[in-house]
Amino acid sequence: MPELDLRPHIAGLPGSRIREVANAALDRADILAFYFGESDEVTPPEIREAAAESIARGETFYSHNLGLAELREALRGYIGGLHGDPGPDRIAVTSSGVSALMLAMQMLAAAGDEVVVVTPVWPNLPAQPAILGAQVRRVPLAPDAQGAWRLDLPRLLAAVTPATRVLLLNAPNNPTGWTLDRAEQQALLDHCRRTGTWIVADEVYDRLWYGDGPAAPSFLDIASPDDRVVVVGSFSKAFLMTGWRLGWLVLPRGAIDTMAKLLEFNSSCAPVFVQRAGLAAMAIADRFVPPLVARLKAGRDRLCQGLATLPGVTVAVPLGGMYAWFRPPADAPGAGDSLAFAKRLVAKHGLGLAPGSAFGPEGEGWLRWCFASRDPARLDAGVARLRAALYSAGSA
Amino acid sequence: MPELDLRPHIAGLPGSRIREVANAALDRADILAFYFGESDEVTPPEIREAAAESIARGETFYSHNLGLAELREALRGYIGGLHGDPGPDRIAVTSSGVSALMLAMQMLAAAGDEVVVVTPVWPNLPAQPAILGAQVRRVPLAPDAQGAWRLDLPRLLAAVTPATRVLLLNAPNNPTGWTLDRAEQQALLDHCRRTGTWIVADEVYDRLWYGDGPAAPSFLDIASPDDRVVVVGSFSKAFLMTGWRLGWLVLPRGAIDTMAKLLEFNSSCAPVFVQRAGLAAMAIADRFVPPLVARLKAGRDRLCQGLATLPGVTVAVPLGGMYAWFRPPADAPGAGDSLAFAKRLVAKHGLGLAPGSAFGPEGEGWLRWCFASRDPARLDAGVARLRAALYSAGSA
Repeated sequence: MPELDLRPHIAGLPGSRIREVANAALDRADILAFYFGESDEVTPPEIREAAAESIARGETFYSHNLGLAELREALRGYIGGLHGDPGPDRIAVTSSGVSALMLAMQMLAAAGDEVVVVTPVWPNLPAQPAILGAQVRRVPLAPDAQGAWRLDLPRLLAAVTPATRVLLLNAPNNPTGWTLDRAEQQALLDHCRRTGTWIVADEVYDRLWYGDGPAAPSFLDIASPDDRVVVVGSFSKAFLMTGWRLGWLVLPRGAIDTMAKLLEFNSSCAPVFVQRAGLAAMAIADRFVPPLVARLKAGRDRLCQGLATLPGVTVAVPLGGMYAWFRPPADAPGAGDSLAFAKRLVAKHGLGLAPGSAFGPEGEGWLRWCFASRDPARLDAGVARLRAALYSAGSA
Repeated sequence: MPELDLRPHIAGLPGSRIREVANAALDRADILAFYFGESDEVTPPEIREAAAESIARGETFYSHNLGLAELREALRGYIGGLHGDPGPDRIAVTSSGVSALMLAMQMLAAAGDEVVVVTPVWPNLPAQPAILGAQVRRVPLAPDAQGAWRLDLPRLLAAVTPATRVLLLNAPNNPTGWTLDRAEQQALLDHCRRTGTWIVADEVYDRLWYGDGPAAPSFLDIASPDDRVVVVGSFSKAFLMTGWRLGWLVLPRGAIDTMAKLLEFNSSCAPVFVQRAGLAAMAIADRFVPPLVARLKAGRDRLCQGLATLPGVTVAVPLGGMYAWFRPPADAPGAGDSLAFAKRLVAKHGLGLAPGSAFGPEGEGWLRWCFASRDPARLDAGVARLRAALYSAGSA
């Protein structure tokens, strides 16, 4: 077959290394899979029933580009309760968080623009500006001796110059669990005000937060409605709605009409019945999210304690998110190549983890483990498999 | 408030003139609305029940980027029945037809690339390459004396040169009903093979076809699997599923892995329960689509006959699609400004039509009327309102 002349910067996008590992586990029922970024819990019944009722009512037509007015209003109340009222005409409903991020990037970055992104990070974030022909510069976090990943704030501030169009941040961070603190956010906002740089903040893990208060520190807490700040949220994580593909954008004042056009030209609108599910999620948020976060915190603690019992394993307890991010012992055979290591773990030991290199070269040598598991015993069983893999002679 | 420095080529995208007209009708129950491109019939119960059952079963998790294997296989059978088996690894499920078109454009066109598009056309088509920074050249259809819009094939062939990266075609065409015939398709394919130009064919109206056979002429009938041809389809029109946001791409051999990556980075996947609805649509296609098309054909004939009784109105009976595309009498006051004219029609006469200028300057002076109405009497009532608007002294 002839070589297709697809656009080289598109054909050259990285494939998912997580999927590469998962593919090595296909058709095997014995795998304990922790590689994907979703809970194994089904969406709550109240949310599912709202969608089913909408479908039964025949809500099968186009809707407003920006989302149902009721849902935008409910989101305004939800976001306002966490961070203060954003005011009118600042929220757009999107067909997933990833779609929201792509829309934000389309609004802000064109070919040749410079986008700075803090890494390691979910690969979709740097891929989106690359699709648009922007120049992506990576500023890495780095682990301390205890395995907690830290931001080198002076280095990041130096990297963001008047030539930087967008600063792209994901905090709480997938995969490391690193979270921006208030002082860092303020320093970044002040700096970006001076350089004229937009901040796109992927805050989809904001509620999966194990520190003080109901949500991780957000740029919404400190930005004015006229700041160049776009915040992306999602129903996926805090409402167990990964498969629904529903998210939102909080935009600065004056951007909503442009975003409505981009929504029209990218996806037109989210299905009404999916938006009704989102409305049901908003209605149960106060009583659903805190117990979910408590379950996740218990899973986090159980997994991190289990990992800490493994000699030579480096792991820090993350403040946010739903992942343990750890480094196998330096002398574990093959541990320096996380993709090959993860493939062997799944093939030989039935343990499905995400390789650190899936999140960029900065993550090489590390592994990501999603602890959002309904049954904590699954986490224990996974740790036992990892122990066998690491310390049984010749088995890893 | 300060002016936001959004990317100028984004902020300058045209807003929807159809929505502008519809907004003039907000909160009025007396409007006969024919401006949107969707039927007023609810999605068939078999399709809705399949989605509800999937939700009840708890299918609320991520799925494959390219769509469920069963749905891709069903689509292969469906498309194969119309146009011959496309073979394996050529079909991707997308979150709507418009998303499929955007994904195709991302795969093929970068900033500075030339994209030729035949117009007038649904405004999303030229907007998508513009978002990516491509240069869009419009090649207009033109009406004959009877009001049927025709392609000037030599002009289009002359416009597509080795500098043309993509030829973007929508046939059956929204809004004109113009449809490429087989000889034109073959001439365009032969020409694009010589110039190395990709053809992106928006064929979402393929089944809404009133000529011979079960579908309009398709590039899939004549292209080889190695041709630079991408065909976009959708569940929206032929299965009354506009609000579900489900479509597909037929790609040349060798492009599927790149498309899987673009899907991951744009939307990740369509909801599983929406894909189950798509599977149910495939299962009832043979018995559902032909009667739907018969109903649409009856609506088309009734509306076009009604319009033809209006002195001075120019209208041709379209071979495909779901729109009557007509020109009011040249002496109708204000008819030269279709946006203002449509706004007056809705405000003063309760008749909601789409202004021709919504589809580009080529459509100025014309109006689009969606005849996909369950109740044919609605079409008659609409024609009566148009009659009153056109011929009652001073009323239009």
